[in-house]
Amino acid sequence: MKKIYNPKRSEWSTVLKRPTQTVADIEQTVEAIFKEVQNDGDTILKKYTEKFDGVIIDGFLVSEQEIEEAKALVSQELKEAILSAKNNIEVFHKAQKTDRVAVETANGVQCWQEKRPIQKVGLYIPGGTAPLFSTILMLAVPATIAGCEELVLCSPPNKEGKIHPAILFTANLCGVTKIFKVGGIQAIASMTFGTESIPQVYKIFGPGNQFVTVAKQIATKYGIAIDMPAGPSELLVLADDSANPAFVASDLLSQAEHGVDSQVILVSTSKEIIAAVEIEVEKQLQELPRKEIAEKAIANSKLIYVEDDATANDLINEYGPEHFIVCVTNEDYFIDNIKNAGSVFIGDYTPESAGDYASGTNHTLPTNGYAKQYSGVNLDSFMKSMTFQKISREGIVEIGKTIEVMAEAEGLYAHKNAVTLRLQSLKD
Amino acid sequence: MKKIYNPKRSEWSTVLKRPTQTVADIEQTVEAIFKEVQNDGDTILKKYTEKFDGVIIDGFLVSEQEIEEAKALVSQELKEAILSAKNNIEVFHKAQKTDRVAVETANGVQCWQEKRPIQKVGLYIPGGTAPLFSTILMLAVPATIAGCEELVLCSPPNKEGKIHPAILFTANLCGVTKIFKVGGIQAIASMTFGTESIPQVYKIFGPGNQFVTVAKQIATKYGIAIDMPAGPSELLVLADDSANPAFVASDLLSQAEHGVDSQVILVSTSKEIIAAVEIEVEKQLQELPRKEIAEKAIANSKLIYVEDDATANDLINEYGPEHFIVCVTNEDYFIDNIKNAGSVFIGDYTPESAGDYASGTNHTLPTNGYAKQYSGVNLDSFMKSMTFQKISREGIVEIGKTIEVMAEAEGLYAHKNAVTLRLQSLKD
Repeated sequence: MKKIYNPKRSEWSTVLKRPTQTVADIEQTVEAIFKEVQNDGDTILKKYTEKFDGVIIDGFLVSEQEIEEAKALVSQELKEAILSAKNNIEVFHKAQKTDRVAVETANGVQCWQEKRPIQKVGLYIPGGTAPLFSTILMLAVPATIAGCEELVLCSPPNKEGKIHPAILFTANLCGVTKIFKVGGIQAIASMTFGTESIPQVYKIFGPGNQFVTVAKQIATKYGIAIDMPAGPSELLVLADDSANPAFVASDLLSQAEHGVDSQVILVSTSKEIIAAVEIEVEKQLQELPRKEIAEKAIANSKLIYVEDDATANDLINEYGPEHFIVCVTNEDYFIDNIKNAGSVFIGDYTPESAGDYASGTNHTLPTNGYAKQYSGVNLDSFMKSMTFQKISREGIVEIGKTIEVMAEAEGLYAHKNAVTLRLQSLKD
Repeated sequence: MKKIYNPKRSEWSTVLKRPTQTVADIEQTVEAIFKEVQNDGDTILKKYTEKFDGVIIDGFLVSEQEIEEAKALVSQELKEAILSAKNNIEVFHKAQKTDRVAVETANGVQCWQEKRPIQKVGLYIPGGTAPLFSTILMLAVPATIAGCEELVLCSPPNKEGKIHPAILFTANLCGVTKIFKVGGIQAIASMTFGTESIPQVYKIFGPGNQFVTVAKQIATKYGIAIDMPAGPSELLVLADDSANPAFVASDLLSQAEHGVDSQVILVSTSKEIIAAVEIEVEKQLQELPRKEIAEKAIANSKLIYVEDDATANDLINEYGPEHFIVCVTNEDYFIDNIKNAGSVFIGDYTPESAGDYASGTNHTLPTNGYAKQYSGVNLDSFMKSMTFQKISREGIVEIGKTIEVMAEAEGLYAHKNAVTLRLQSLKD
């Protein structure tokens, strides 16, 4: 772990630098596959599924029977855990519902704003050894609360042409309309254009490797919205002497096990806690099954000492962490003053993994400093805001002159005329 | 105008097709200018301002003195109109403020969501003959209500090196922090990277020509958020026999005058109103200063007759209009059932130009069918949602097991351990 004491503000951007990713060279590959999927649909999906997933798939749609088989394969203990997490996620996301906002902005001018669901959404769930069923909860639960009509899920098949039972169980539980055995760039392209099997959607959500990340970026060029741009997962812990070094170390390691490019940072105004955490990290690291991955991420991690809370707060806002754990006595100062963070975990008994699975908050969060301008996934991510206005005769008389003057000043005479005609009709 | 009677559902996508835009060939130009601005900052801005705007600019920042001069040049009548519009826009956007959403999802598990402002935002305002000061109101007013700390505005200078007084007056009135005389691709690149003069921002808003549109798209590749992808402005009017043909025609024309690629569609279940509107359009067209532009847009416009309201509603949802005017007796049916529209204008006395300037709703709206998945600009566009959670000892006992089981099933043992350690400490 790299220890940095009192970095100068001019050095912050270097100290806080994330590992660079080069996407430019992937773009051409992604664009080429997009074009192929656009032109040849399912035939191309079959080709790339054989090439990348090593299996020939005839029907991409997961059948009812496959779902029933999956249900039987998931342990009762896991089912109960998933149901319990689902409940908390539902409670938190249902609370995010907003009423319509209606005001009379001027006499006779009624304006209102309503949120309505995005009709068709696509969820991408990566394959691999770890089946990310928790992400299905995080996406399908709010999508269902929002009222999205069609929830399409794509996930790559394994060598036997199957999707992990926990994924199928969770998707079925959460109201996913259709599940398809297709992954990678070709899955994102399918949901962008639609194929014979797979419906086009309006917005695509979900994590993935760098190919999926670039594919989602390319999808936006074809008019499809995405949840947010992605980067490696990251955690910043702020701790003082009141913090428990073992707990802090366990949180840093739970982030570090995600991948060798994971970002782990500890910020503190106490050199003692930094030293204690470092010892604990070494100790706990030895016990981890994913030790090799975590070790590499930890080697790049940073322990940053700063002199006071105000400096710590500024530094954290400059970084904009995806996950921000606050284990300090004066937690309120940081809660009130944090400007850029995806999700904030407060106190000794709030590990990041609580938010990853079961506290109820969403774990699809902005990485890479995007917390400065992007929200984590929430209920509104599955809706769009629309505005309405209804103006009475009295109302157009009230604001007509303003419109005429402004339209004329902008050189838009037909805009002006649309008002003038109406005002004249009321004088006649 | 093209009349289409009872188009089959299979033909809707063709009937509703928007004019295609090719952006691929612009991308390289934009990328090249981005690289130059990233490397050489102000020097490059100067070069391109001379090349594209035909003027040598030494200081890009608009001075206090220039703002004072501008204030003196705007007529009292226009100032009053701008102030009146600003008031309505403020009332509507202030009403969109939301409280923090706090719930206890399980015993001892406190979760809440808060929206906090995006610290630095950039507004792009195009130049040209028509100074779009109204767009400043639509962007700077909600940005200020949101609490954004830095509002940077870029707009191209004219041949005399000046920005239109109405733009400077409005920007100053609405709390824009800094105004810069720079336009086009180079303005978007400046706000993306920052230069010696121009600060980097986190999110860029505002309209522009196809170069600006592509530049905003490219900016997202460098981690900057944008308001939404853009396309030509469009209007769909739904009218029945109760509608006033002259009013409808004036609305169609106010859209048509925007540009030759503007989209204008009338949908009706009455052949009579279609015929009457067509006659009115011809009549009013002759009077317009921007007749040549409007004529070309009108030539491509469509008058679509359908047999019943349900079909009309489906067709409109398939199109997803930016602006949707509803002039029918049973307006409630359409208000309740519209799924995809940017802003809806209801009744005979609610012309689109009311929303463009002064009703209070925002005029920065999704075009090109993006109403299916994007919101128009609103207060939330200038904020991001953050989540917080605080779990008590009781709380971690309550949800700990769920987290452990799920983390293990996903193969993330350090995630599990962060909980196990805490649970054990409570047993000791």
